[in-house]
Amino acid sequence: MKFIHTADWHLGKLVHGIYMTEEQRYILEEFIELVKEEEPDAVVIAGDLYDRSVPPTEAVELLDEVLFRINVELDTPIVAVSGNHDSAERLSFGSSWYKHSQFYLKGKISADFTPIHIKGVNFHCVPYAEPGTVRQVLDDDSINSHHAAMEAIVNRIEEHMNPDEPHVFVGHAFVLGGKTTDSERTLSVGGSGCVGADVFKPFHYTALGHLHSPDAIRHKSIRYSGSLLKYSFSEAAQRKSVTIVEMGEDGTFECREKVLQPKQDMRELHGHMEELLDPAFYQSQKVNDYLKITLHDEGTLIDPINQLRQVYPNVLHLERKRDLTDAKKKNSFQILEDKKRSELDLFKEFYKDMTTGEFNGEKENVVRNVIDIARREVDHA
Amino acid sequence: MKFIHTADWHLGKLVHGIYMTEEQRYILEEFIELVKEEEPDAVVIAGDLYDRSVPPTEAVELLDEVLFRINVELDTPIVAVSGNHDSAERLSFGSSWYKHSQFYLKGKISADFTPIHIKGVNFHCVPYAEPGTVRQVLDDDSINSHHAAMEAIVNRIEEHMNPDEPHVFVGHAFVLGGKTTDSERTLSVGGSGCVGADVFKPFHYTALGHLHSPDAIRHKSIRYSGSLLKYSFSEAAQRKSVTIVEMGEDGTFECREKVLQPKQDMRELHGHMEELLDPAFYQSQKVNDYLKITLHDEGTLIDPINQLRQVYPNVLHLERKRDLTDAKKKNSFQILEDKKRSELDLFKEFYKDMTTGEFNGEKENVVRNVIDIARREVDHA
Repeated sequence: MKFIHTADWHLGKLVHGIYMTEEQRYILEEFIELVKEEEPDAVVIAGDLYDRSVPPTEAVELLDEVLFRINVELDTPIVAVSGNHDSAERLSFGSSWYKHSQFYLKGKISADFTPIHIKGVNFHCVPYAEPGTVRQVLDDDSINSHHAAMEAIVNRIEEHMNPDEPHVFVGHAFVLGGKTTDSERTLSVGGSGCVGADVFKPFHYTALGHLHSPDAIRHKSIRYSGSLLKYSFSEAAQRKSVTIVEMGEDGTFECREKVLQPKQDMRELHGHMEELLDPAFYQSQKVNDYLKITLHDEGTLIDPINQLRQVYPNVLHLERKRDLTDAKKKNSFQILEDKKRSELDLFKEFYKDMTTGEFNGEKENVVRNVIDIARREVDHA
Repeated sequence: MKFIHTADWHLGKLVHGIYMTEEQRYILEEFIELVKEEEPDAVVIAGDLYDRSVPPTEAVELLDEVLFRINVELDTPIVAVSGNHDSAERLSFGSSWYKHSQFYLKGKISADFTPIHIKGVNFHCVPYAEPGTVRQVLDDDSINSHHAAMEAIVNRIEEHMNPDEPHVFVGHAFVLGGKTTDSERTLSVGGSGCVGADVFKPFHYTALGHLHSPDAIRHKSIRYSGSLLKYSFSEAAQRKSVTIVEMGEDGTFECREKVLQPKQDMRELHGHMEELLDPAFYQSQKVNDYLKITLHDEGTLIDPINQLRQVYPNVLHLERKRDLTDAKKKNSFQILEDKKRSELDLFKEFYKDMTTGEFNGEKENVVRNVIDIARREVDHA
């Protein structure tokens, strides 16, 4: 039995003020091609289909179209749960109708833990839920953390598990590391929002969503597929992929990753303006990528972002190397101290922050004059 | 062939700050009972299923449940279009899956006007759309009003109409009167948002939503079902019902109304406090109804709404008969004049507005003193 494990599509996501919908459409086309090629027995989506409970209508239309093509046109069963970014109720609308074509969407947690059988494999679907909700649904007052909630859910699931069949858990949670250290375990039990990996022992494979990197956890049977796209520069170095799992009748499985290539990557560039604007350099670059650029230049620069955007239209964030160094130097204590410093000293620092040039004696005289004039005017007012 | 025509459910509606969801659930239970009894070949919902594009989750869950029970559990085909209160895109999600169980939901207008066939009858579904949208969808620049848009749509529909079969139009629009007078016709063509009734000539029956009264139009083949519930006091005198249509193979039909009884009616009460609070009166009243009360009392009343709510817990609006008379007297010219009048005169009027008691000489002296003191304090400040 073969299934593709994906998660964290985050349709309707805004990144640095830009809607990712067209990027998402592009990568989902690639995903649909993969489904055509691989002909899996199921597609598993482990939560966060949308980025927010009320997504923009473009995202609603995109999800509708993509799921219809996979499920109905390619005749592929879909198993999906809602994540913490989805609205369980809104996502659930219509799910009763989807089942007949083997589209199993579990939006809201309920006390019914009947698994979904597809080609001999049991899929146990557990949407994201707050501990308080699970406490109510299971009528168990002892539940006061995500870990306890998941433990209670898995206990319920185990009551009816056929030990002779393979079992896959599909969920959306923050699961703490494979080789769980004691300190992590304490943390997870203490109600920090984490769930200890041991909880998932009864399952042959645990298909997770929530963390965006496929390397988020190193465990032989628990896996995050990772998100569909890079959704922040902190993910710039991550590869984005889906996981293809082939499971035998005894629950043993092999899995491989399929990297998806976005139309425009999200990555970082470092260098001097001159270098970055040199055709010899940028002609070898995918200039349309979403970029965070860190400039190494010193001295005054006039409107660098607009100069850079002539070449790199999708610069989303610009930093200067000095800023970083300065930011490290500056601490909140110093900011408080600023109040006691003279206008001239404050201006000196401002000048250094903005220009990287030297604030020499001549400049100092000009500014001192301006400050004197301003002060006299205030005094006479 | 028998179908039930309903519209304007407005799930998620707030009336005077109160969510109608529980009222709506009650009346929809009654509607489901009617479907069980009548066993129609279809249920037709002519738009405004929701009250707004992003309805509260309770409304989403209620609609999901009700439609599932009618369509799947009672095995009844549903034909529905979106209204101006619905979000065409959001309501459309999942509609491709619903068709297999004969739930035909047309959320977004498109150039595909293929009708839905149910037991020999053609249902032509036209969701609410702005003229600009229709202009784009039909690629027809001459469309600049609702009337022109509907005319163009009906022309398209007519191209493929089989004249030997019965045809039902399902839509959501503001259609102007049956015996269309010339002036109304001019109005409708002039882009006022109205559609002339003549446009619907090709159809044996036109099932409309938008206007909330079943008497909104008097025409032999065009009908508003009216809303499910009274949604404002201006509808207090309207009866609320659904229409049951039985249509022959030649398109002739008979229709009858089925009045639905809400748990709590919305109505108006008039009288004096003493009268309204007299058990002999209120014991014959459905005191839990949603009420607008008009008091006929003169003179000062202390917190009348709370006194009334001891007996009538759902008073939504309270008026005094004097207010109405005064409101008519007062015009904007007078308000402008207020600026020129003395504080004492203004207070006299305010006193009369608020109390209905006489502003006698003794009271006048008290207020004159207060005004004098206040003025002296301002002068010395």
